Amino acid sequence: MAKDFYGDLRLGILGGGQLGRMLIQEAINFNVNVHVLDPDPNAPCKKLCNQFEVGSLADFDTVYNFGKDLDMLTIEIEKVNVDALEALENEGVLVYPQSRVIRLIQDKGLQKQFFKQNDIPTSAFQFVSNKEGLANCQIPLPFIQKLRKDGYDGKGVKRINSPADFENAFEGPCIVEELVPFEKEIAVMVARNDKGEMMTFPMVEMEFNPQANLVEFLISPSTYSFDIQMKAESIAMKIANDLQIVGVLAVEMFLTAEGDILVNELAPRPHNSGHQTIEGNYTSQFGQHLRAIFNLPLGNTASRANAIMVNLLGEAGYEGLAKYEGIEEALGIEGVYVHLYGKKYTKPFRKMGHVTIVNQDRAIAIENARKIQELIRVIA
Amino acid sequence: MAKDFYGDLRLGILGGGQLGRMLIQEAINFNVNVHVLDPDPNAPCKKLCNQFEVGSLADFDTVYNFGKDLDMLTIEIEKVNVDALEALENEGVLVYPQSRVIRLIQDKGLQKQFFKQNDIPTSAFQFVSNKEGLANCQIPLPFIQKLRKDGYDGKGVKRINSPADFENAFEGPCIVEELVPFEKEIAVMVARNDKGEMMTFPMVEMEFNPQANLVEFLISPSTYSFDIQMKAESIAMKIANDLQIVGVLAVEMFLTAEGDILVNELAPRPHNSGHQTIEGNYTSQFGQHLRAIFNLPLGNTASRANAIMVNLLGEAGYEGLAKYEGIEEALGIEGVYVHLYGKKYTKPFRKMGHVTIVNQDRAIAIENARKIQELIRVIA
Repeated sequence: MAKDFYGDLRLGILGGGQLGRMLIQEAINFNVNVHVLDPDPNAPCKKLCNQFEVGSLADFDTVYNFGKDLDMLTIEIEKVNVDALEALENEGVLVYPQSRVIRLIQDKGLQKQFFKQNDIPTSAFQFVSNKEGLANCQIPLPFIQKLRKDGYDGKGVKRINSPADFENAFEGPCIVEELVPFEKEIAVMVARNDKGEMMTFPMVEMEFNPQANLVEFLISPSTYSFDIQMKAESIAMKIANDLQIVGVLAVEMFLTAEGDILVNELAPRPHNSGHQTIEGNYTSQFGQHLRAIFNLPLGNTASRANAIMVNLLGEAGYEGLAKYEGIEEALGIEGVYVHLYGKKYTKPFRKMGHVTIVNQDRAIAIENARKIQELIRVIA
Repeated sequence: MAKDFYGDLRLGILGGGQLGRMLIQEAINFNVNVHVLDPDPNAPCKKLCNQFEVGSLADFDTVYNFGKDLDMLTIEIEKVNVDALEALENEGVLVYPQSRVIRLIQDKGLQKQFFKQNDIPTSAFQFVSNKEGLANCQIPLPFIQKLRKDGYDGKGVKRINSPADFENAFEGPCIVEELVPFEKEIAVMVARNDKGEMMTFPMVEMEFNPQANLVEFLISPSTYSFDIQMKAESIAMKIANDLQIVGVLAVEMFLTAEGDILVNELAPRPHNSGHQTIEGNYTSQFGQHLRAIFNLPLGNTASRANAIMVNLLGEAGYEGLAKYEGIEEALGIEGVYVHLYGKKYTKPFRKMGHVTIVNQDRAIAIENARKIQELIRVIA
């Protein structure tokens, strides 16, 4: 790296939410000067950085002016002005992940094409330019409709069961995907530095609540067979290498009953599916992201224990100043780590924090995670 | 606790150095609003808290005014104005550790008397009010002379070998201590919350460099016999209970060749001898301190691996803007965690950071720690 860092380096983060906050907790160890841009004047990173700037992440001038005096930029959200990032790259600012990677991943259509061009297994798909196009689609019903852009946290994704659903489908450019009858959603986090060194974290499993059809918690490491884990990790490695990304990359996948793996989506940044690495692995996803973008040797990703991650979502029916119930009781359970995100206001299903539960015994870890889910409530 | 916390609570830290910095890294998880007072306008905590105030920790008005609108105060250094803390306590501000504990520990003479009154094993001692008194001292030469107040990081401590040394001895009230021919310096960190729950961390060992007579590194956990470890831990528990302290307390002790343990000194706060808990134990000393002062259940203190802590001191012969050599190579070694303290300027032996090395194999951990000592240099 051109610049002598540890004290001198000015790192900008686009987005000042919980991912930025946890990245800062780790960046403190490297003496990095952190600058943050976020549209929310009360963003979680506000009081934890050298400079906090309120502004739109989508606006060219705002992003360009924010970045032009910095040494390096990274993101905690993909929805940013990529043209500004490209202009900054051309002027010598290091942008990791690179603007071309963010541009590709911003568009789920380009992501799908990238998978196809690089022989990366993924579900069958078709582009549709508007609602009317759904009727002529070749993918058999029921199928999944996804907006090509701006989907986030399950938004922008719809299941279309029959022609009766076409009316309420999304308008605008989208992809139609074959419905994958998966057995499990799995994910692998991979990191790559500019020297080309790559390292995956052990594969994790998402546990669904069958009633609510929501990810209930994330279990690390997976107990699937060695072959399946190696297949998932090698897919993640191939993607990181094909993209030549610098930074961490979350690869979300479907595992079918037959043992096939299909890539669902990518996130070129620290991700919800890697939060448990903070206490569960030798290196956290945040530490690994910093090692990758600083072009340092990547850290050991091995698991230190079984780790279950539970999201703390705003309770349905409550909106306003956040209050947390059950934290004290939760901390009475062994191996419980609470991470609150510093969000002043809660609303239904807003991510307000997460809890990681570690235990050398997987069954006890899962049992304790269920207790935590019962105990903690975020209300107003 | 009276106040509903997680977002509302305003916690003041007296001192904005590395201990405050690492405490903030942990406090972020609890949504605490942190206010910091430090005389140095470039203190390590400056950019990481809700409010940073520059001012003297020794001045009554400064400390009182800093604390009067806060809910809770804690310290990262003992040398603070205790009268102001007592006044704040009387007005309902929660001060942990309590002002009476800080007052006692500020004076090494009062500490020694406390040990004696409570049957806590410690070396023989005598009070001397000035340099002239040394000649009439009953403790046999060679002995240790310690200033009663304001000693810090080895300052304020002298070995007096013969009457020829009296001339260069400290002036002012001091204690003379019998020289303990110890085999090992050991330490136990203990925490106590306001409900009276107490928990110790496993005993640690300080490894000395025989040439330089300096603590080279700290090894956790100790491999001394169960009996010795239990003796050390029960001494720490007894002290925490006798003091009725709220918060963490570091108990530094001498272990003799005969297996006797003598208490050397106390620090009523997170301490250098507990840094390795961040990666080496299920709960870190910083997390435990927050649990204790928030009156939450104390966390599991068990070791997760062998952990060696190496201080990064400013290299002799260098003074000025700090530069770090060897970090990249160091991070290429497995299980290495670098913590830089964000100090702009280095000077000889200034604590600029620390490195923790973890490994399931103790011998490899020690070998890697020696490599780290060779590799990293803090120069200007």
